[in-house]
Amino acid sequence: MLRSLSNVVAPRALARMFAAGPDMSKLKVTKTTTPREKLPAEELVFGANFADHMLEIDWTAAEGWKDPVIRPYGPFDIDPSASCYHYGGVCFEGLKAYIDDDGCARLFRPDMNMARFSRSSTRLGLPDFDQDAVLEGIKELVRLDKDWIPRKPGYSLYLRPTAIATQESLGVGAPSASKLFVITSPVGPYYKSGFAPVRLLADEHHVRAWPGGIGYTKAGGNYAPTVVPQKKANDAGYAQVMWLFGETGQVTEVGTMNMFVLWHNTAGELELVTPPLDDGTILPGVTRDSILHLVRSRGDVKVSEAPFTIYQMIDAIADGRMVEAFGAGTACIVSPIEGFNFKGVDYDIPLSADASKRAGDLTHELAEELMGIQYGRIEGPPGWSVKLD
Amino acid sequence: MLRSLSNVVAPRALARMFAAGPDMSKLKVTKTTTPREKLPAEELVFGANFADHMLEIDWTAAEGWKDPVIRPYGPFDIDPSASCYHYGGVCFEGLKAYIDDDGCARLFRPDMNMARFSRSSTRLGLPDFDQDAVLEGIKELVRLDKDWIPRKPGYSLYLRPTAIATQESLGVGAPSASKLFVITSPVGPYYKSGFAPVRLLADEHHVRAWPGGIGYTKAGGNYAPTVVPQKKANDAGYAQVMWLFGETGQVTEVGTMNMFVLWHNTAGELELVTPPLDDGTILPGVTRDSILHLVRSRGDVKVSEAPFTIYQMIDAIADGRMVEAFGAGTACIVSPIEGFNFKGVDYDIPLSADASKRAGDLTHELAEELMGIQYGRIEGPPGWSVKLD
Repeated sequence: MLRSLSNVVAPRALARMFAAGPDMSKLKVTKTTTPREKLPAEELVFGANFADHMLEIDWTAAEGWKDPVIRPYGPFDIDPSASCYHYGGVCFEGLKAYIDDDGCARLFRPDMNMARFSRSSTRLGLPDFDQDAVLEGIKELVRLDKDWIPRKPGYSLYLRPTAIATQESLGVGAPSASKLFVITSPVGPYYKSGFAPVRLLADEHHVRAWPGGIGYTKAGGNYAPTVVPQKKANDAGYAQVMWLFGETGQVTEVGTMNMFVLWHNTAGELELVTPPLDDGTILPGVTRDSILHLVRSRGDVKVSEAPFTIYQMIDAIADGRMVEAFGAGTACIVSPIEGFNFKGVDYDIPLSADASKRAGDLTHELAEELMGIQYGRIEGPPGWSVKLD
Repeated sequence: MLRSLSNVVAPRALARMFAAGPDMSKLKVTKTTTPREKLPAEELVFGANFADHMLEIDWTAAEGWKDPVIRPYGPFDIDPSASCYHYGGVCFEGLKAYIDDDGCARLFRPDMNMARFSRSSTRLGLPDFDQDAVLEGIKELVRLDKDWIPRKPGYSLYLRPTAIATQESLGVGAPSASKLFVITSPVGPYYKSGFAPVRLLADEHHVRAWPGGIGYTKAGGNYAPTVVPQKKANDAGYAQVMWLFGETGQVTEVGTMNMFVLWHNTAGELELVTPPLDDGTILPGVTRDSILHLVRSRGDVKVSEAPFTIYQMIDAIADGRMVEAFGAGTACIVSPIEGFNFKGVDYDIPLSADASKRAGDLTHELAEELMGIQYGRIEGPPGWSVKLD
């Protein structure tokens, strides 16, 4: 039941209706008078500490986007009938701000996040927005809280744009009111002391996404159902869930990351493969896209966006054709995979012969290259690293 | 890819861990000092007006269920990092309180709602609860706001139990804090002047639920993705979406209702059929279960929980074997279906020869019987109608 992506995205006409605004020339900034405590870098836990300010932009169907506000980080005052509490009309993005060697703040391909944020929002009936305007608001927020970007290698300020439906009615319908907001959280490197390769549990029971569903969006409703399967994997001693699809056992994603395999395919070619976007079940990751671009530019590895199955992975391992595998996402950049369990059997995936890398050689190189671009030490493709000052 | 329901529900062991509490003997009631305005019955819009009080019970992983509170209806003060805003960790229930001819408040099979609320919650990693205790809290709320139950035929107080994940962290994981709350809304009859039979648009692109997913729960994330398809159906002149599944075009649900068809099957039997619950894609509706029970008790119609396809419906219409069809749910009880559009072709479904009914004969009888039981005018099966005073 494959369908083209054009069939599952929200109607463009509906999207354009709301795309005007917000008007960033009307941004009002209220600075905090009670700055929050900054934790020592080594005490940071991912997404548990927040910077001083947040961006908040309300919208109503009657009036469109209201004037944007940057205000001290703090709670919302939302009616218990607000539809975000009932019908899951919430979506989000994740990107990071980095400090480069010159002390400038940088973002990495934020236009990709804004485009996906727009797709997620409109698929849920939330209003579309001027992507440049919202990005400008995010840049203002980062400039204001620049001191919150940790200046240690591998550290960054995680930015979390979010949109929620806020209309005060229990009717299931297109939101008549919503709130777009951005909070930020100083974070450390995903792996404090080099890579920590993970073992996965292939899940035969739970299916993350389906053609005709919304797995290609960052809708909140795609994430809450993964919590219990993830806990079961952890309880069984595995770090992440490997998501499968269909009778053939197609490998789709790993945890909240895109999945990559480097192998010698049955034609004998060295091939990097990741599932394709065309049936709407795979999140179009910014790191995924960046890796595809970088490896295609190298020219020494065949790059494929194509379905593959867990049985093909097992065959490649048995034949000695498996080279390495990794997950890819904003939080960790790349996450080396050293094995997985399927139907009670554990399978090993090779890491580099250089044991100090604790990752496949390509995985390791890609992490270095991506971090180099993100922190401005390597010149990446035009437009990837965006300087703020 | 059929799976038994036991494979997709949350692990029972995890559920039991949290099932102790809340302790309703510790309920604190704070009555409003500024009663809200009661609208005239004819001005009520579904889910848009709320009664004076709400039930609120917080939970943390460290301390379990806190003391329950009934307090004046009003907003929450929730941190913008709360996971309900990001990962869709929200679920809900819907049931109604009715006033019977003796002036007593009644609920309809509330134990079914509590059991499903527990299943939805635990599937999302939200804490389980003592179902009797939460139901007792709901009864106390209804007793306190009994004056908010409209006393006109067909009117009721819609009760909305809801659970949301509230931990202040962007990590995707089992909630370490949550809030269970109940708000109530006076509502009128779904059809103000008798039935209004609906036409459906069969959706070939969007898939509501799939095996291995969580379509069997009332997780919020099942609802927000339906808003855009529903709007497209409305824009094309249809009242609701008819949800299909798979290459064979299995009919699954209609809007937010279970789907029932009454036809003469190809064996010549008069058969009421609704999709089965066994692959986890169908919501186990309280109205669905009640209708199955009532029609099975009659004995004059074969009752089947079995998959059927839109092509079988079209064949039955072409052969003159289609008798009637309806959706079933708490909001409308039953919603007569007079036709649907599939691949650009409109198909008609018969209504009663008695045009004044504006529904199939069985649909009309079931509505009368269910309302009779709900309002205490007909003696239903033991335990169905629960008197509060």
